[in-house]
Amino acid sequence: MIIDCHGHYTTAPPALEAWRKAQIAAIGDPSKAPSRASLSMSDDEIRASLEGAQLKMQRDRGTDVTIFSPRASAMAHHIGDASTSLEWTRLCNDLIRRVCTLYPDNFIGVCQLPQSPGVRPENCIPELERCINELGFIGCNLNPDPSGGYWKEPPLTDRWWYPLYEKMVELDVPAMVHVSSSCNPCFHATGAHYINADTTAFMQFMTSDLFKDFPTLKFIIPHGGGAVPYHWGRYKGIAQDMKRPPLSELLLRNVYFDTCVYHRPGIELLLKVVPADNILFASEMVGAVKGIDPDTGHHYDDTRRYVEPIDWISDADRAKIFEGNARRVFSRFGTRTPREVNASARGG
Amino acid sequence: MIIDCHGHYTTAPPALEAWRKAQIAAIGDPSKAPSRASLSMSDDEIRASLEGAQLKMQRDRGTDVTIFSPRASAMAHHIGDASTSLEWTRLCNDLIRRVCTLYPDNFIGVCQLPQSPGVRPENCIPELERCINELGFIGCNLNPDPSGGYWKEPPLTDRWWYPLYEKMVELDVPAMVHVSSSCNPCFHATGAHYINADTTAFMQFMTSDLFKDFPTLKFIIPHGGGAVPYHWGRYKGIAQDMKRPPLSELLLRNVYFDTCVYHRPGIELLLKVVPADNILFASEMVGAVKGIDPDTGHHYDDTRRYVEPIDWISDADRAKIFEGNARRVFSRFGTRTPREVNASARGG
Repeated sequence: MIIDCHGHYTTAPPALEAWRKAQIAAIGDPSKAPSRASLSMSDDEIRASLEGAQLKMQRDRGTDVTIFSPRASAMAHHIGDASTSLEWTRLCNDLIRRVCTLYPDNFIGVCQLPQSPGVRPENCIPELERCINELGFIGCNLNPDPSGGYWKEPPLTDRWWYPLYEKMVELDVPAMVHVSSSCNPCFHATGAHYINADTTAFMQFMTSDLFKDFPTLKFIIPHGGGAVPYHWGRYKGIAQDMKRPPLSELLLRNVYFDTCVYHRPGIELLLKVVPADNILFASEMVGAVKGIDPDTGHHYDDTRRYVEPIDWISDADRAKIFEGNARRVFSRFGTRTPREVNASARGG
Repeated sequence: MIIDCHGHYTTAPPALEAWRKAQIAAIGDPSKAPSRASLSMSDDEIRASLEGAQLKMQRDRGTDVTIFSPRASAMAHHIGDASTSLEWTRLCNDLIRRVCTLYPDNFIGVCQLPQSPGVRPENCIPELERCINELGFIGCNLNPDPSGGYWKEPPLTDRWWYPLYEKMVELDVPAMVHVSSSCNPCFHATGAHYINADTTAFMQFMTSDLFKDFPTLKFIIPHGGGAVPYHWGRYKGIAQDMKRPPLSELLLRNVYFDTCVYHRPGIELLLKVVPADNILFASEMVGAVKGIDPDTGHHYDDTRRYVEPIDWISDADRAKIFEGNARRVFSRFGTRTPREVNASARGG
């Protein structure tokens, strides 16, 4: 089985965006805010939004299941206040649940969190519990910068975040560290802010004892770990200069990288420097880069084509990257089938 | 000749830091500010600070000349106001000039700029002119985020920066895009802020027509280009999705990467994906990573050891990376010897 651990519902029917626009227009005048129940979207509309996109690509590329969450760039935690964020988040997570109900073999849910700038992360706990316990989701996306490019929250290693981590550990779910859109004109979202956040998070983890406090807490750093594998020697050296333990001991029991790197030399580097146990296959397809590389004739984000032919990793390592690590890191997935995971949802 | 295009005076005698401390202590009470003339530092002290460090490493590693600028992390443009920044900048640049006078074969100067948050970049022009025309320097370091990690300045492609670019073009000098220390607790300076800034700058350049307005403007993105080469497919694909020209045409006549990547697989990736014409040898030695890699027995930042043995690049390309490109990008260096460059300073 090939598990794509990083997919967002980027192709949702237009009614979703229309609802969001109405919600944003009503900021400052809650009486005009749309109710969640007012979102009208048929199962056929949802099917149509996926059949030509994520599902077609799963078939074309020979991947089996996508760990699926709401569109990252649309989380936009900086818009409105905590109640704006909560309403939008619930709506988006419910929609992911509908996708998983319609296609229980193809998608497993991961939730957006109702973060809001300056609001304590424990406000996310009820929605996290709902998604894991009631919707059958297996993880969450955690935004290290709900301000959208101004980085005003404490680092991910600050005790500010601990109540949420306690709940993640209790529920046995990992978080993918994933920012949303940038409202800072310095940072292009998918070209700079996303990659910078990945690098930033790794460095925060490296300089802290977070994983002494939470030995079983797990994070996935997406987009191939930002700049980290390319600068692996730099990080190894900085850790050493700081008299920190080796990276393997310091954080590689807790931190994982996905394979959203859109060319073969990048994937080769990742596989060369990061242990196979710490790499999870992913494409983020229908995401930041939608085009076809004229040099290969294939989609840039068809990452299976980069990983598959690398012949200097063992079959055992390839199996870990494609399947085993995702089942281990998303431990509620474990040995179950996607259909079993989805069936575990109450009323699912 | 091997030219190291990226070195900072990180080992300056302690009197420099003491002066800076006194300057910072006097913020708010200018009457107590130290004068530049009060910095007392003998030539022997300067020699001693270099003989066991940069100069020893040049000899040990077989590199010939370092393009040398004030310590990047100490620029700290966010401290005080524009006059604080100007005084500190002049002092630091004058010290680089003294180094070049003492060792005219080993160092060529690049200047710090007296940037200050929210202050228009044209305020840097007099100091840039002084350094280029009077001190014999051949380039400058430009900080895209004088706020120190809050990114409050317009992007480097904004017209805000144009007066400075006009002067750079007139003087025929490139800028290395280099942030300073971070006062944002989210960003570790050398592990996150530096690398993020490199990635950010590249993406800013990619999404603008800056180089249509300034066809001869040149930037060096240090630290191997941040995350860019590792995500080369991503950038190529984003440019394509945005209907921008190919990267080669869009910015590779104006943007260069150094080789400050501290492990062999990273350097191999860089040389695989970035054209040899766009890579300048550099180590940033006595910089972010000072230790010895136990796996190789050599300093992490001894980057010559990574570049030299790569046998799938041509000798011509290797010569460009080690020497030719630096002479071309720092066009005031050109075909001259370092001694000739330094002798061109008025009173040098």
